[in-house]
Amino acid sequence: MSEIAPPVAALIEEFSKLPGIGVKSAQRLAFFVLRSPTDQARRLSEAILRVKESIIYCSRCFNITETDPCPICSDAQREQEIICVVEEPLDVLALERTSAYKGLYHVLHGALSPMNGIGRKDLRIDELLRRLEKESTREVILATNPGFEGDYTSGFLRNEMKNALHLPQLRITSLARGLPTGGALEYADEGTLSRALEGRREI
Amino acid sequence: MSEIAPPVAALIEEFSKLPGIGVKSAQRLAFFVLRSPTDQARRLSEAILRVKESIIYCSRCFNITETDPCPICSDAQREQEIICVVEEPLDVLALERTSAYKGLYHVLHGALSPMNGIGRKDLRIDELLRRLEKESTREVILATNPGFEGDYTSGFLRNEMKNALHLPQLRITSLARGLPTGGALEYADEGTLSRALEGRREI
Repeated sequence: MSEIAPPVAALIEEFSKLPGIGVKSAQRLAFFVLRSPTDQARRLSEAILRVKESIIYCSRCFNITETDPCPICSDAQREQEIICVVEEPLDVLALERTSAYKGLYHVLHGALSPMNGIGRKDLRIDELLRRLEKESTREVILATNPGFEGDYTSGFLRNEMKNALHLPQLRITSLARGLPTGGALEYADEGTLSRALEGRREI
Repeated sequence: MSEIAPPVAALIEEFSKLPGIGVKSAQRLAFFVLRSPTDQARRLSEAILRVKESIIYCSRCFNITETDPCPICSDAQREQEIICVVEEPLDVLALERTSAYKGLYHVLHGALSPMNGIGRKDLRIDELLRRLEKESTREVILATNPGFEGDYTSGFLRNEMKNALHLPQLRITSLARGLPTGGALEYADEGTLSRALEGRREI
């Protein structure tokens, strides 16, 4: 016998399939579970199953939800004519935390990435275009991540909306770029600083 | 609604209880599980439960096992008169991988650490002493980790065995200390290099 007990080996293997978890981390996690109270292990085990069983995608905005349409889409208090387009459900969470946005969302579930073979069919792009044809949207805020893939995706969406749809009155905006609050000018990278200069405002 | 769907929030919370997993990593893991095939999520969920349900500690060596005594303790081919004392079950695995050791083990489940409040009652030290009184052990190899706490634990065990037990013929050894295979002399720390000099051998 030169092997670890099979149930432990199986748990190590399953943990090491998670992103950012190597074999050593998976071993550490497995032994932690082994030593943790049974209740805690059971809660983790059940939380994993429950996420798979109860979470669906909203048929309107494609955010994750337990009910379709999701609580945001079915909230009549929210502005129905503004759609904020984000890459991931966590981006919705980040924007909701600001309490500064009262419109609706559209979750793409990723960004275009020719390098990684992620094209428009892999994202909820056509669903967004169909949605714009149906709903009376006044403004689309493109809130993809401020990096190469996010910017490429935003540019692509802008062109699609301008060219494929006949909605001349539709306003297309993107989030402001500049210095992050709490950041120091001397540590800002050139891209951020150029954008901050470019977008300077009268005070 | 400024909250994430409750099942996802629950999974993030459970993941963030694992060691080395912060809130951001827990979010990443939860969304990975959400997107992974149901089969894979179910295997992880079941592996967690199965570890808690089927793993016990060997009543002789305190290694983790599905059967008591464990496969190593019940293997008559192994040398019954040598016991290698290690801190953790993973150390057994590391030693077994070498195929260089054919004796038995004793797993302490930690090292003495006055700083962290870990004393002899928290480890399987008394179980080791009782075992030595009962079994006809010829040699105990102290294979704790080569650091402050491991060395302290080894020293403590050596004194306990010398003083508390009347086993004058018992050989007490520890693993050799020196340069690690594949390491470079110029990068070796002073402690390692001093030990390598001290333990030099005729060739």
